[in-house]
Amino acid sequence: MSNAFDFDPESPRAVRQAIRSGRFRGFTNGLVRGHVQGNLMIVPAAQADDFAAYCALNPQALPVLGRSEPGSPHIPALGADLDLRTDAGGYMVFRNGELSDTPREISGLWRDDLVAFVLGCSFSFEGVLQQHGVRLRHLDEGQVSAMYVTGLPTRPSGAFSGPLVVSMRALRAADAIRAISVSARYPQFHGAPVHLGQPGLIGIADLAQSYGGHGLTQLHADELPVFWACGATAQLAALQARLPLCITHYKAHMVVTDLPVQASRAIPLDKKEIPS
Amino acid sequence: MSNAFDFDPESPRAVRQAIRSGRFRGFTNGLVRGHVQGNLMIVPAAQADDFAAYCALNPQALPVLGRSEPGSPHIPALGADLDLRTDAGGYMVFRNGELSDTPREISGLWRDDLVAFVLGCSFSFEGVLQQHGVRLRHLDEGQVSAMYVTGLPTRPSGAFSGPLVVSMRALRAADAIRAISVSARYPQFHGAPVHLGQPGLIGIADLAQSYGGHGLTQLHADELPVFWACGATAQLAALQARLPLCITHYKAHMVVTDLPVQASRAIPLDKKEIPS
Repeated sequence: MSNAFDFDPESPRAVRQAIRSGRFRGFTNGLVRGHVQGNLMIVPAAQADDFAAYCALNPQALPVLGRSEPGSPHIPALGADLDLRTDAGGYMVFRNGELSDTPREISGLWRDDLVAFVLGCSFSFEGVLQQHGVRLRHLDEGQVSAMYVTGLPTRPSGAFSGPLVVSMRALRAADAIRAISVSARYPQFHGAPVHLGQPGLIGIADLAQSYGGHGLTQLHADELPVFWACGATAQLAALQARLPLCITHYKAHMVVTDLPVQASRAIPLDKKEIPS
Repeated sequence: MSNAFDFDPESPRAVRQAIRSGRFRGFTNGLVRGHVQGNLMIVPAAQADDFAAYCALNPQALPVLGRSEPGSPHIPALGADLDLRTDAGGYMVFRNGELSDTPREISGLWRDDLVAFVLGCSFSFEGVLQQHGVRLRHLDEGQVSAMYVTGLPTRPSGAFSGPLVVSMRALRAADAIRAISVSARYPQFHGAPVHLGQPGLIGIADLAQSYGGHGLTQLHADELPVFWACGATAQLAALQARLPLCITHYKAHMVVTDLPVQASRAIPLDKKEIPS
C-alpha cells in the first residue's frame, strides 16, 4: 500500500471502492498499473448495435473489452463488483450532441434501455512501457498524455462517424522505438502508434492545442511526439451522431477492471499487430 | 526464375553458384529474399576469440550466425556447398589497418590459421518488411541503404573497439512504426532500430556523407531517417585494431546462406527484443 492513499492503489477492487465512496477523485493513470483500465461509453439500446459495428470497423481506436446487457450497469467479466453508474469517478452526459452535465455518478440517470461499452485505453500499457525502461515524462511530471483531433477519418457505421482522436507521448528516439515494439503487442490497448514525428502530417496544426485542453504538450529538443489511436474517438462520434443520450467517463477517470494487463499480451507476428 | 537472371534468384545455392562462377556480380540485397544473408569477417585465429567476445558484447550490431573451424573456409550449417573464399562476390583485404586490395575471390590468400565469422545483416529483414507493407524507397530506386559512422561507442574487447556503424532507411512515419514492430522480432538481423529522427543526436552531422559514399541519403519531406545497427561495425573495429590481416565482404556483396528468414522469428516479448 502506498503512503499517498488510504487504499491499495494496485487493487482494482480497492480502487473502485475508493472511487465509489468518494475517497479518491483523481486521475486513474497512476493506479492499478497491472490491471486494464478502459474508456466508458453508454448509449441507448437503439444505437448499441451501430456503435458496436463502429468499434469493429475501427478496432485500433475502439477495442471493445466488454459490453453490458441492455439495462444492466454491470459487466461481470470485467469485475464482479463493478458498477458502471458509480465507479468511473466522473462522467460526461451528452444530450443531442451537447455536453449537458459532468456528474460524479449517474445512478439517477440510469435507464433500462442503456447499454454500456468498455473500450481499451492506453493507460493500460503505460506501466508495461515503464517496465521496459521507457521514460514517460508526462507521468514523471504528474500529467496525463495529451489528446488531439486528427484529420484522419474513421470508418463510419450508422450514425457514427468522425475523425480519429489520438493520444500523444513525448519520447526520446530510443524510448519511442521501445514503446513501438512493446505497444504493438497490445492491440486491445490501441496497439502500435498510428504516427510519430511531424504532427501536421495527420492534421494536427499545433501541439499546444490539445483536445480538452489538458495533458503534456511541450516537447524537449530531443523528443519526438508519438501518437496512439485513442478511445476518445468514440466521444466525437457520439457527439456528431447527436444521440438523444450518451454518457462517457470524464477525462482521465477511467473504468478500472480486474483484467490483468499481462494476460492480454502474446500476439503472434501477423498483420493484427501491424497498424493498417 | 526471374527474366533478369539466368539463375533462380530465390535459391541460395543457385545464387552462390552464379557468384562463384562470375555470372552474377551485383549487390545481393534484391536476391533470395526468403533466406538469410550475412556479413563476412575473417581474422587470424590468434584474434578470433577476442573478436567473438566483441560480437557477444555488441550483439545488436554483430549477431553471429556462424563461425568456421580454424583453417576452414566452410560453415556447413549455413550451406553445404558454401565456400567463403569465393561466394561473397567481392572482398576487402585489410593489412595493418589499411585497405590493401578488393579481389573478387580470396582462394590465393587463404591460410590454415584463418577463422571466418558470418554476422547477421539487415538485408535479411527487408523482404519481411516489404511483406508487411513497408515501402523501402531505396529498393524501389535500385539502391542500397546508406551506412553511417555514429558517435555511439561499442563495448570493447581485446584489440577490438570503435564506433557503432548504422544503416539508414528513409521511411514515412506509418512505415517506420511497422518496420520497428517487425524488425524487433529479428534480433539476429540487428533487431529494432537504435535511433530515428534527428541524425545529430547520434553523432551523424550530415546524411549526405554516408560511410563508403553509397546508398540512398536524400529524405523526402514526409520521411524520417530510421537507423539500425550494422555489421559494418566490425570493419571499423578491425581497422582500428590494425590486425595484420583481416578480410571482409565487399560492400553489399553479402554471404548468402541456406537459413530461412522465417524460421528465425518468433521472439517472445522480453528484454531480448528491446534495444538497450
